[in-house]
Amino acid sequence: MSKGLLLVVSAPSAGGKGTILKEMFQQDEQLRLSVSATTRQPRPGEKHGEHYYFISEEEFQNLVNSGNMLEYAAYVGNSYGTPREPVEKWLAEGLDVVLEIDVQGGAQVKKLMPDCVSVFIVPPSMTVLEKRLRDRGTEDESTVRKRLETARQELSHAEDYDYIVVNDRLEDAVEDMLAILRSEKRKYARNPGVIQKVLEQ
Amino acid sequence: MSKGLLLVVSAPSAGGKGTILKEMFQQDEQLRLSVSATTRQPRPGEKHGEHYYFISEEEFQNLVNSGNMLEYAAYVGNSYGTPREPVEKWLAEGLDVVLEIDVQGGAQVKKLMPDCVSVFIVPPSMTVLEKRLRDRGTEDESTVRKRLETARQELSHAEDYDYIVVNDRLEDAVEDMLAILRSEKRKYARNPGVIQKVLEQ
Repeated sequence: MSKGLLLVVSAPSAGGKGTILKEMFQQDEQLRLSVSATTRQPRPGEKHGEHYYFISEEEFQNLVNSGNMLEYAAYVGNSYGTPREPVEKWLAEGLDVVLEIDVQGGAQVKKLMPDCVSVFIVPPSMTVLEKRLRDRGTEDESTVRKRLETARQELSHAEDYDYIVVNDRLEDAVEDMLAILRSEKRKYARNPGVIQKVLEQ
Repeated sequence: MSKGLLLVVSAPSAGGKGTILKEMFQQDEQLRLSVSATTRQPRPGEKHGEHYYFISEEEFQNLVNSGNMLEYAAYVGNSYGTPREPVEKWLAEGLDVVLEIDVQGGAQVKKLMPDCVSVFIVPPSMTVLEKRLRDRGTEDESTVRKRLETARQELSHAEDYDYIVVNDRLEDAVEDMLAILRSEKRKYARNPGVIQKVLEQ
């Protein structure tokens, strides 16, 4: 059995990442979503190991200091990060693992796990992104403006990613993502023993 | 419209390349098969520009000398090669082009067109390859032995290829090939203007 693939996925907010990933998980049983660790308190209904690993600041720092946090950041006074161990465990079992993280996190992971495959999901245009943000109807004008500005900044990091998927039609974007997963597994570099195996059998 | 993709496909004989490609052409209308040029005489029923470009030795040498032959080789007194112009024309039209060539040809093309994507199709095992050769029932024992030996030599070139597709179940191999085509088109490096376009629209 070959090792699973680590897929780093980033997108500006309202880029449609959540919907695409949900669809991928429905179509691909070998896919797992990495669970983040956080030092914040669980909210009602949140389960340890499912929504987050809820850990203490000390445990968090220990993971960082021992190189066992693939990426981490602080956000309004709490720490968030991706523990390495569960990811490695799934990969060793041959399962593919998705890390849903921002552009800063993506760069950190690429350094620690250069074998990962990174995909940046982009909206077809800023006009479409703006429309999607407004259609949600949940944000006021200044929040929409702020999100659009953040999106512009995030898009400038696209060049750090291996693949760009344009989220125009959902089905196309999902098929792109699954094709990336499938084809990456066929790379010669990821199949060191395959020719020897053919020759010997 | 973005440029098409050049797909170099090699496989040991009886590797199932022909069947896989036939299936791909049926499923993908944007795909074209490169036509080789040869100095040999046309056989009954063979059409110029369809089965081969039938050209003179002088025309052939002119194409080679001017760098307009992507790869070429001599075989029982005749020259065979892939003229660059029709391939470039299709790629410029946004069509994807398949070059079905041997391992020597593959290496030549990679040098002249480093943007190409190369796939090596392998049988699941030498045992299966031998069975497939014998099941054809068209070759005598010594020919089967020779083909198996050639296959072993060709397999040692697999490391020069970007992707390895194991031809176990036909449908899986075809899906692998189509996934490779699809995902390669999503590579950031192949989409230099995409982010700028998103930002401007």
